[in-house]
Amino acid sequence: MSLIVQKFGGTSVADPERIRRVADRIARTRRAGHDVIVVVSAMGKSTDELIALAGQVNPDPPGREMDMLLTSGERISMALLAMALHAEGISAMSLTGSQAGILTDQSHGEARITEIKGDRVQNSLDEGQVVIVAGFQGVSPDTKEITTLGRGGSDATAVALAAAHSADVCEIYTDVDGIYTADPRIVPTARKLDEISFKEMLELAGAGAGVLMARSVEFGRRFGIPIHVRSSFHDAEGTWVKETTMEEAIVSGVAHDTSEAKVTVMDVPDTPGVAADLFEAMSHDGVNVDMIVQNISSAGQTDISFTVSRTHSDLAMATAKRIAEHLSAGGVDIDRDIAKVSLVGAGMKTEPGIAARVFRSLANQGINIEMISTSSIRISCVVEESQAQAAVRALADEFDLHDVREEVGA
Amino acid sequence: MSLIVQKFGGTSVADPERIRRVADRIARTRRAGHDVIVVVSAMGKSTDELIALAGQVNPDPPGREMDMLLTSGERISMALLAMALHAEGISAMSLTGSQAGILTDQSHGEARITEIKGDRVQNSLDEGQVVIVAGFQGVSPDTKEITTLGRGGSDATAVALAAAHSADVCEIYTDVDGIYTADPRIVPTARKLDEISFKEMLELAGAGAGVLMARSVEFGRRFGIPIHVRSSFHDAEGTWVKETTMEEAIVSGVAHDTSEAKVTVMDVPDTPGVAADLFEAMSHDGVNVDMIVQNISSAGQTDISFTVSRTHSDLAMATAKRIAEHLSAGGVDIDRDIAKVSLVGAGMKTEPGIAARVFRSLANQGINIEMISTSSIRISCVVEESQAQAAVRALADEFDLHDVREEVGA
Repeated sequence: MSLIVQKFGGTSVADPERIRRVADRIARTRRAGHDVIVVVSAMGKSTDELIALAGQVNPDPPGREMDMLLTSGERISMALLAMALHAEGISAMSLTGSQAGILTDQSHGEARITEIKGDRVQNSLDEGQVVIVAGFQGVSPDTKEITTLGRGGSDATAVALAAAHSADVCEIYTDVDGIYTADPRIVPTARKLDEISFKEMLELAGAGAGVLMARSVEFGRRFGIPIHVRSSFHDAEGTWVKETTMEEAIVSGVAHDTSEAKVTVMDVPDTPGVAADLFEAMSHDGVNVDMIVQNISSAGQTDISFTVSRTHSDLAMATAKRIAEHLSAGGVDIDRDIAKVSLVGAGMKTEPGIAARVFRSLANQGINIEMISTSSIRISCVVEESQAQAAVRALADEFDLHDVREEVGA
Repeated sequence: MSLIVQKFGGTSVADPERIRRVADRIARTRRAGHDVIVVVSAMGKSTDELIALAGQVNPDPPGREMDMLLTSGERISMALLAMALHAEGISAMSLTGSQAGILTDQSHGEARITEIKGDRVQNSLDEGQVVIVAGFQGVSPDTKEITTLGRGGSDATAVALAAAHSADVCEIYTDVDGIYTADPRIVPTARKLDEISFKEMLELAGAGAGVLMARSVEFGRRFGIPIHVRSSFHDAEGTWVKETTMEEAIVSGVAHDTSEAKVTVMDVPDTPGVAADLFEAMSHDGVNVDMIVQNISSAGQTDISFTVSRTHSDLAMATAKRIAEHLSAGGVDIDRDIAKVSLVGAGMKTEPGIAARVFRSLANQGINIEMISTSSIRISCVVEESQAQAAVRALADEFDLHDVREEVGA
């Protein structure tokens, strides 16, 4: 007998019919003799609808009330799912994030999980219940306020619960079949990965692969919980994200991200502390900075470029202009039409020449590289947004990321 | 400065536009220097929609999960109302029933308030916040489970909070102008009462006047909290329900109720303990019994008739048949097409002949009386459902329940 955490997203529980299908899947797991903790998101687009309602009464609603509002969404889906399980003869109980002991800090709208008090979940498991926990939400023990975890929060809830209860696996059910070597919408022959290491998945998530958020992968890695990303529409195996001991593939996949903008501060005096001034100010103003590139200086001056989320771009520009003035820099420029294309592979670090192959294959397609940033297992290039798909295809071709079976079958 | 509790029903907060209007009214009260606790129901028909959703996944959903589901409704309306107040520059905070310390017993779907722990509400009031509390919900301290209070629950929340915080008044905002001498849909010239005593209001509520439920009136009476029933659409005074010291009107109003069915157990042996057997069984099976009438016996046998809610009528029949067999009674009969018409007035007890006038005025309209039951300030008659409106009009005429101004103006 195992303890399995199963997480179902909003699409999987979008209507009563789908909720019954999810209940059926949980019931089969339970009847196979496993203990089950279920984590569920709000139904379909209901969170978006609540956000729209809020906008109609207040264009800038307070975060506390926004969290109070949004947490009603999972309350509805989890109660309905518990009812559907009862209808299948399976004993089940829904718990809010607060009831499930998911403690967070006080940051409304983007709270971090600080601790999980698992007593109530454990008692219900001991009673033979399927425990259904509201994803995306928790409670701040200091303020006794309800909080939400922000983007990807339900996955984080699932992996954190799996860690707290030493689950054997955390299954993330989604509308795709698993993790692919490239986005199948761009590279239709992309290959589904049977497994991938936490480290590689972290890089892929950070590089824009939307299936799993980095914070969930990080939880899984830290507590050694295997994550199984799989389809909610059929029973086929998906992709296992885990501490792999197998021989590592040179390249696992290519990811792209068109959600960022590039900010450049030009003609910065090349003196110590300049970068610190700039990025301390960004951090202080709440701007998340991703890639940072600084070239060698000429005539005692240099350019510093960095990427930020496009939703932060106005804020980033304001901060950059303020600091540029303070530093007597030449000026600030922004480019919102960029894409980041990244190649990830744990084997990269022992295989020379990968970077050169990346740059050559992009050049062969006439794609200009505007920024480069690398880690030991990732190479990221910023290109024009209009060339993103061509860049992904070029790298998929160069590094054999296609599904051979599909190619043969085609 | 006063402490005012204001309760708004689902119709008053049915959409963002109405929520803004309610926020405006609360803001005016607050700006006038009063402390305000607001109790709010779920938006419009949202509770009915949630019940329908539940029915689609489980025809007989467990009460615990039903409460989890339904309590999401007030969570949405109260958060939106808090946001709307912030938009008006009024500091406000929404609290769930649990956060507001509304403790109940464990009866899911029809919990009773057992205690109110007012610390958190008081702290927020002390900080100058308008406190918005979810109506209709609480928490059972024994099981730590979320409960709902059942029909009229939001009014009960409001009056109980008013009592716990020693409010000066509990204002119930509704879609009618106040309490009328008769249902204005049946008697268009019915008169709005400026005030009515708790006792009379209790009888009226028990007799089917839907504006206020008896449980709220009972709270008000017990703790001496005046209840002001008024329209959410304009500022005119409504009806004050309070401990009145004024000279009492002989008759305050007529109410009718078409939600009951009449069950008769025929030819019951007229021996001690028979009625006890019957009604203990009803109570045990969860059937709420309203009127009970037993006539004198003939030949050692009698008929016992009683009324129950129509939603309980199948259950009541099953129980009655079981007990009838046990008692060797003649049989059980049910009539679902009945109406209860009641005349209420505190002055009745000192004024002889009221009952005779009731019976005569009904007889003059050719209305047959099937059951009679009286208290010191109420006379109730069960008649055929099709004759209910005629009976209400006859009593309104007989006891001058019309608005004189309206008659003059007509």
